[in-house]
Amino acid sequence: MNSEQFRAAAHSAIDQIIDYHDNIESRRVVSNVSPGYLKPLLPPGPPANPEPWADIQADIESKILPGITHWQNPNFLAFFPANSSYPGILGELYSATFNSANFNWLCSPAATELETIVLDWLARLLNLPECFLSTSKNGGGGVIQGSASEAVCTVIVAARERYLRALAAAGKSPEESEEIVDNNRSKLVALFSDQTHSSTQKGCQIAGVKHHSIKVTGSATENYVLTGPLLRKSLEELTAKGLHPFFLTVTLGTTATCATDDFASIASVLKDYPNVWVHVDAAFAGAALILPQYQHIPAPFENFDSFDMNMHKWLLTNFDCSCLYVKTRKYLHDALSITPSYLRNPFSEQGMVTDYRDWQIPLGRRFRALKVWFVMRSYGVSGLQGHIWNSLRHGASFAQWVRDRSDIFVIVAPPSFALTVFAVKSESREESNRLTGIVYEAVNADGQIFITSTVIDGIYAIRVVGGGPKIREEVLKRAFDILVRKTEEVLKAGVNGVAKTNGVKLNGTNGIAALKQEVKEVAQACIRGV
Amino acid sequence: MNSEQFRAAAHSAIDQIIDYHDNIESRRVVSNVSPGYLKPLLPPGPPANPEPWADIQADIESKILPGITHWQNPNFLAFFPANSSYPGILGELYSATFNSANFNWLCSPAATELETIVLDWLARLLNLPECFLSTSKNGGGGVIQGSASEAVCTVIVAARERYLRALAAAGKSPEESEEIVDNNRSKLVALFSDQTHSSTQKGCQIAGVKHHSIKVTGSATENYVLTGPLLRKSLEELTAKGLHPFFLTVTLGTTATCATDDFASIASVLKDYPNVWVHVDAAFAGAALILPQYQHIPAPFENFDSFDMNMHKWLLTNFDCSCLYVKTRKYLHDALSITPSYLRNPFSEQGMVTDYRDWQIPLGRRFRALKVWFVMRSYGVSGLQGHIWNSLRHGASFAQWVRDRSDIFVIVAPPSFALTVFAVKSESREESNRLTGIVYEAVNADGQIFITSTVIDGIYAIRVVGGGPKIREEVLKRAFDILVRKTEEVLKAGVNGVAKTNGVKLNGTNGIAALKQEVKEVAQACIRGV
Repeated sequence: MNSEQFRAAAHSAIDQIIDYHDNIESRRVVSNVSPGYLKPLLPPGPPANPEPWADIQADIESKILPGITHWQNPNFLAFFPANSSYPGILGELYSATFNSANFNWLCSPAATELETIVLDWLARLLNLPECFLSTSKNGGGGVIQGSASEAVCTVIVAARERYLRALAAAGKSPEESEEIVDNNRSKLVALFSDQTHSSTQKGCQIAGVKHHSIKVTGSATENYVLTGPLLRKSLEELTAKGLHPFFLTVTLGTTATCATDDFASIASVLKDYPNVWVHVDAAFAGAALILPQYQHIPAPFENFDSFDMNMHKWLLTNFDCSCLYVKTRKYLHDALSITPSYLRNPFSEQGMVTDYRDWQIPLGRRFRALKVWFVMRSYGVSGLQGHIWNSLRHGASFAQWVRDRSDIFVIVAPPSFALTVFAVKSESREESNRLTGIVYEAVNADGQIFITSTVIDGIYAIRVVGGGPKIREEVLKRAFDILVRKTEEVLKAGVNGVAKTNGVKLNGTNGIAALKQEVKEVAQACIRGV
Repeated sequence: MNSEQFRAAAHSAIDQIIDYHDNIESRRVVSNVSPGYLKPLLPPGPPANPEPWADIQADIESKILPGITHWQNPNFLAFFPANSSYPGILGELYSATFNSANFNWLCSPAATELETIVLDWLARLLNLPECFLSTSKNGGGGVIQGSASEAVCTVIVAARERYLRALAAAGKSPEESEEIVDNNRSKLVALFSDQTHSSTQKGCQIAGVKHHSIKVTGSATENYVLTGPLLRKSLEELTAKGLHPFFLTVTLGTTATCATDDFASIASVLKDYPNVWVHVDAAFAGAALILPQYQHIPAPFENFDSFDMNMHKWLLTNFDCSCLYVKTRKYLHDALSITPSYLRNPFSEQGMVTDYRDWQIPLGRRFRALKVWFVMRSYGVSGLQGHIWNSLRHGASFAQWVRDRSDIFVIVAPPSFALTVFAVKSESREESNRLTGIVYEAVNADGQIFITSTVIDGIYAIRVVGGGPKIREEVLKRAFDILVRKTEEVLKAGVNGVAKTNGVKLNGTNGIAALKQEVKEVAQACIRGV
């Protein structure tokens, strides 16, 4: 493909992309292809000789798009959003053009320096404590990671090394220090609440450390929040067993119900456990900190060690863009640098240049700061705030509609940020779980909207979360009407016996698993009109 | 930015990108900005209100491009290449548009299924043993990772868990099994040669396991190759110390000299150590396997557990695209899945759908298979082979030119793939190191070409490696002429005393570090005309 062929191809691609965005609501939000749909559509290997772009482009519509779940469709109300935006796309375009590997400053100084600058901009927008800025006296700063999972794994490793080095300092010789580390490595334990995203557990598996989940409770009026007293109890129990608590994830906006942990009381307890690294997972809800009404939240973070939020979720920046801040970047270097000390150069030591390879698991890295810069400038602070504000306003409307139909729905946890979690009302929990599951499956099978379910404290619930820039109040109202209609249908069918067949007892998680399977079968029966 | 504004912005961006590519040779290949150049050029924070694209775009040329090191410039002969291509850029464009998170199959079935298909295509192009294909009876398959570092870290974790689980099986209760794991975790050790890329060591640091480097030797006629006998010696020594060797990286194309380890003799030794996971790092040179003359190389890989090559280096696919293959995907799931068994579904269990989140460290993932598909179709097999063949041909020419000037240059290791490693000739190693270092620094400071140096077995050497699609024989000839001219200048200056000041003894690595510092100072003096 020469330059003129690329010009024609790219212009044609841009037209297709705009058409895709402008008409995305006409597409079924979730793909309904069957597993293995693509292989029969493609040849058994690449072509021997070049194919023209027109042939390739035609295959995008005919072969790829049927297998796309449209995350940018405003009827996508599942998981958390993954905002794409035109300025973000332009950022990827230039990043792919320069295509420098950026593992050190010299690979492309602009890639490193723009990242430091825009992450400081973002830290101030989020009102993070000064200690997380690159300019802080304590040597903090931000780095763009690929995902919140990668970010938490990175800080678990940094925390593990910090903890083990502190123990090793008691050794009187290198051999004795190594022995101390060897003997204590298996005693380290990371903590989190049972509402924490699974990425912390995965990070522990990667780092090879134990983990402990703290059960939290909640209701329609109190969210599932980790508190200082609950944390203290676990810390005491684990320490009594001879384990070493070294890491804690706290969350701003848990996955199931967008709960915000009680940072102040947690910080207070941790004064007695100063060696515990505390990581704030604000992957989704962190974006809301750009609004004045949330800017009081980050104050206690000055007691913590790291903070992560994904611009690629709710802040209009294409995946991937997970913004990780640490209070002391030295701990990342100590754990991740493979540059022997004698090769360290005065520029790096004095903080004059940053080599981001030592802040992350991979070596090479894309120039992701470009898209952040484009997004911030194209929207301006007012545009970014307006987008978040719209989502919150729509979320509040949705929650109110659910409350207004208290004849058929119950709120499961306090609506938070743009998320509402609710279930179908019934006299017994078993029946509510069954009916909610059927409604959930029937709505997704119908395919006009896409939602996610969750199981919290034995309650099977539906999660509806906005956050996409194309979402308007009438789109959410239509989604709500679909949920009401399906619920009414299922309740009617339930009375007629369909949903009451095959009674399932909810004996803990196995009960939920069995229920999920049954719900799928019953939902399919409902769809088929049984 | 609305759709029509985006159309205009994107067209203008495409024009700028084509202009950048077409005129890239007119730019200084390495950026020569000073650390901190960008901050004074940008405002202290994002704008309050939206800025038009024209203002943003203008800043790319004036503020960003001075800080870009042009990896696509054919005068870039440093590190290893990072090929960008027009079809690859189009792949990123569509990936950013769909922007699905792709952590499971349903997130966008096309993203998962296309990845499986094109990685099978690639495995066949590379002539990998059947066991690495997704269709293999043993349950193998490929996955796109962000970088070779991420890939090796992933398989180290999988290998560690496989090894510990095997030990734990001897426990008579869960508690006893846990105790066995706790007591043995610190005894695990990974092996690699001292020519192995540092990413394996970094992966060990992340996974929390010991590592052991095996010294290999070489010369101008024998490359720095790990062999079976060397490996056996280390395995025996480590085992005698009570350690558990569980992992080995072997390399096809080492970083310093593009050596290819002796896979057959290594495989033979490992018959006695069947629990050692063997990973083949073919990050750069693996691309050459698409040529018929190299297709005999992968045969012994059927004895190994994983293989990784970066299409984003030499195979015309924009960063990031590291293609990792494993013989048994179950070991990745066992180590990385956080899905409890009772939530596994029959589709996943039967291999009908793949959830790539369980093959990698992050959760979400971009749709990177698109660019692979576009590149393979746009170039065709003939185009890909022609590109690699050109690089090899140019590399052979360059090596011959170096040999032809044996009056001033010595070959340090056998030229391999597209890489030539050489030094300035001198009577003593100290003097050769000094002169080579000065030439290296002077050439890079001059800025017409960009090259890398390496230190191997106490020898300071210059690495010149092609691989960029814009490289032509005359570009490399000009680079060679620059090297000759600088060398002749430095030799003349050396005779006059400049390069002989400040004698440095090369006592191991500290000597090299001190030399590097001195070389920089002397090189600056040379440039200033001292």
